[in-house]
Formats: sequence, C-alpha cells, structure tokens
Amino acid sequence: MTAPGTAAGPGTPAHDGSRSLYTYFRSSAAYRVRIALGLKGLDYEAIPVHLLKDGGQQLSPAYREVNPFGLVPAYAEDGRTLTQSLAIIEYLDERYPEVPLLPGSAWERAQVRQLALAVACEIHPINNLRVLKYLSQTLELPETAKQQWLHHWMQSGLESLEETVVRMGQGGDFCAGSAPTLADCCLVPQLFNARRFGVDLTRCPRLLAIDQACAARPAFQSAHPDAQPDAA
Amino acid sequence: MTAPGTAAGPGTPAHDGSRSLYTYFRSSAAYRVRIALGLKGLDYEAIPVHLLKDGGQQLSPAYREVNPFGLVPAYAEDGRTLTQSLAIIEYLDERYPEVPLLPGSAWERAQVRQLALAVACEIHPINNLRVLKYLSQTLELPETAKQQWLHHWMQSGLESLEETVVRMGQGGDFCAGSAPTLADCCLVPQLFNARRFGVDLTRCPRLLAIDQACAARPAFQSAHPDAQPDAA
Repeated sequence: MTAPGTAAGPGTPAHDGSRSLYTYFRSSAAYRVRIALGLKGLDYEAIPVHLLKDGGQQLSPAYREVNPFGLVPAYAEDGRTLTQSLAIIEYLDERYPEVPLLPGSAWERAQVRQLALAVACEIHPINNLRVLKYLSQTLELPETAKQQWLHHWMQSGLESLEETVVRMGQGGDFCAGSAPTLADCCLVPQLFNARRFGVDLTRCPRLLAIDQACAARPAFQSAHPDAQPDAA
Repeated sequence: MTAPGTAAGPGTPAHDGSRSLYTYFRSSAAYRVRIALGLKGLDYEAIPVHLLKDGGQQLSPAYREVNPFGLVPAYAEDGRTLTQSLAIIEYLDERYPEVPLLPGSAWERAQVRQLALAVACEIHPINNLRVLKYLSQTLELPETAKQQWLHHWMQSGLESLEETVVRMGQGGDFCAGSAPTLADCCLVPQLFNARRFGVDLTRCPRLLAIDQACAARPAFQSAHPDAQPDAA
C-alpha cells in the first residue's frame, strides 16, 4: 500500500534505497504511476508538488533540478531520478516483474502500448495545465473557447480510443484482457479528467465499463486524486 | 533499404507476410519509424497518406479503418495493424532484436524512453498539424500567434531536453552513448521540424551535435522527408 506523503516539498533529495514519487493529486500523469505502483504493491514516499501554489511549485528552480521540464511526475530510486510517466511504469515493470503490466508476446505488448500512448500523446498533452494556461493567459481566449478546446480533444480522442479497444476485440474486463495493464493505468486518469470537465462520454461504453472494473480494485482506489494526502 | 512507395493510397490492405508503413514524408511521427526500420535494415512498403490533399487523406473513412485516430503512421505486418510510433518502434525492437534500439539495463532503457517520450508527449503533440489547424481555423488566430505558439513549445521543450541529455552525462555521439537508440529516432525528426519553423536552437548545442552524428548515418538519410517517394 501507499505510504502517506510527507510535506517535504519539491527539491527534497530521495533517500538512498527507497522509492519516491514527486506527485500532484490531480496530475493525470502522476495518477498513472500511482496506479502502477499500487498494482505492484510497491511502497513509496509521496513528495507533493503543488501545481497551483507559489506560481506553480513544479516551475521552481529546486524542482527543475529534479525535472528540467517542470512537470510531474518524477520518480526517484536509490538517489537516481526518472521522468515521464510511461518510462517510469515500463521501468517498474522490468524491475519488479511480479504482477506484469504488459502481456507476453511482442504484438500484444505493442497493442497495449499503442493504447497507453494514444492517451499520453494524443489526448492528454493538448489539455494539460500548461497548455490551458497558455490559452487563457497568453492568448487571452475566453473561458468558453478553452472549454470547447478541452471538449474537442478529449471527446474525439476518447471516441477514437474506444474504437481502437473495440477493434482489438479482446475479452475481459480491462483494456487488453482480464488483468489491468499499462493501458488501464493511462485510461482511468484520462476518464477522471474528462468527467471533471464534463466531457460527453456516451459514445464510449466500453471505456466506461473498463473504468468501472478498475474502480473496484484497491490499487486504483488508493491512487485516486481524492485519496491523496495533498488533495485540496 | 527502403522499398519505393507505391501510389496505392490509404486503405489498401497490407499484404500478408510483409511490412507496410502508412506514412507522410513530413510527419515527424512517421519519420521516427522510418529511421527505426532503417537502423534495423528492414524493408517495407511505404503507403503514402497525404495529410493536406483531399481535405486530409488521414481523415478518410478508408484510413480511419486503419487508424481510428486519423493519424500517421500506422504499421501493418502479416495483415495486422499497429498505431503509435513509439509502440511500433518498441515492437520492431522486440521482434527484430538485432541492432537494438534500447540499452541493456532497466534503468538505462528507462532513461532512453524518458527522452523519446519527452519529444512524443511534451513537444510534438502540441505542434502537430491538427492542433495548428485548430488554432488557425477554429480559433481564427493570426499567423503571428500561431508562430509564437510553435516557437514557445518547441524551444522550451528542446531546451529542457538538452538539459536532460546533458545531465544523463553519457558519452558518445548519440543521446545515450555510442549507438543510436529510440531517443535519437525521436530527436532528429523534432529538430527537422524545429528548423523548418525557424526555432532558435542556439541553446541546444548537445542536441545539435547528436543531430549531426545521426545525419552521417544511412538509416537517418534514407528516412529524411526529402528522400521519401511522396515528397512534394
């Protein structure tokens, strides 16, 4: 289970021999890694990085020392740091192979990765906080235009993802069979985001059914934004 | 070497037992896969999908049968189709392990993946054709605002990538040592894009040196947009 987070703040070095996650409760990329850690039953220290306080703690010089991109999550183990949620999860899957998050054959693994990457490359980046900030602050777009932007990319992206999952034609309750994979780690946070912004998901029945199956699992419950120590 | 592309157009089914790539000469995601295929010495049939002709051939019902997202590239092998450039390259690396595109240890593999994903998740998606179209056509932003958008995300992203590569501190001519990896497959097309739009790269000397090392390799040369059969 997940260790309670400390209030150490960004920039605190990871302790040797331990796992730390720089996280923000509502970051969907951090949420992916929290799910993966939970599925594997790995303890970690949560180091909260508040994306809205202090002008964005992720942009502080201290946190830029952890991740030059100024984005969460970052993962530290034995004093070394990794960024990018999918790279972190693939690492966890190779380093701690019990409860695998990718299936056995090269083609099946690629199919799972294509779903995860569809979320991580085609849906999430266009709607994350820094892009929305640019729309409001730099381009000075009205709130309605920002909402349309969000809905456009999330809805079209999730409907294409639905179609991709349906065509893969795998049975089971999850994206790719009867156990959660990397794809489910990415899907659930994206659906959380979509609901938060009121995106219409009626054309994604399969994704919603998968989401429901995930919600019944403790690893998904303890990774949920509302269950985080830094939740507002 | 790369087989010459046919003019078959999107929607043409892949021949069993062969490799096909749905590609567009200037798509940086397709360019990544072309480099990987070249590094591994794998022949393939190039199926051109013109992103600007016919209102965007990638959006046609025929191509949506190949990829519901309406994006290139897509890769077909033995009558099965995969999407997402990084999933395709990881598949190629597992299926054709000679000339590996990822290093040996889990941590080193994760480091390479974090660089590739930084390009694929943080730099490219915000600047691809469909997003730029939305800025011009839906939001009706002036050309100068679109240019500023492009420059902002590419320059800040590439400078953070430079910092990440420098901190990894690996020697050799490439992103992660003395041989090209998945990270170089992603970096080179992104730098091509950045130059095309006149992005200032003076604060990325390490990335530019890597780009030069890549440019000397035949696999990178034959994957270049100008060398494609569908180049304008």
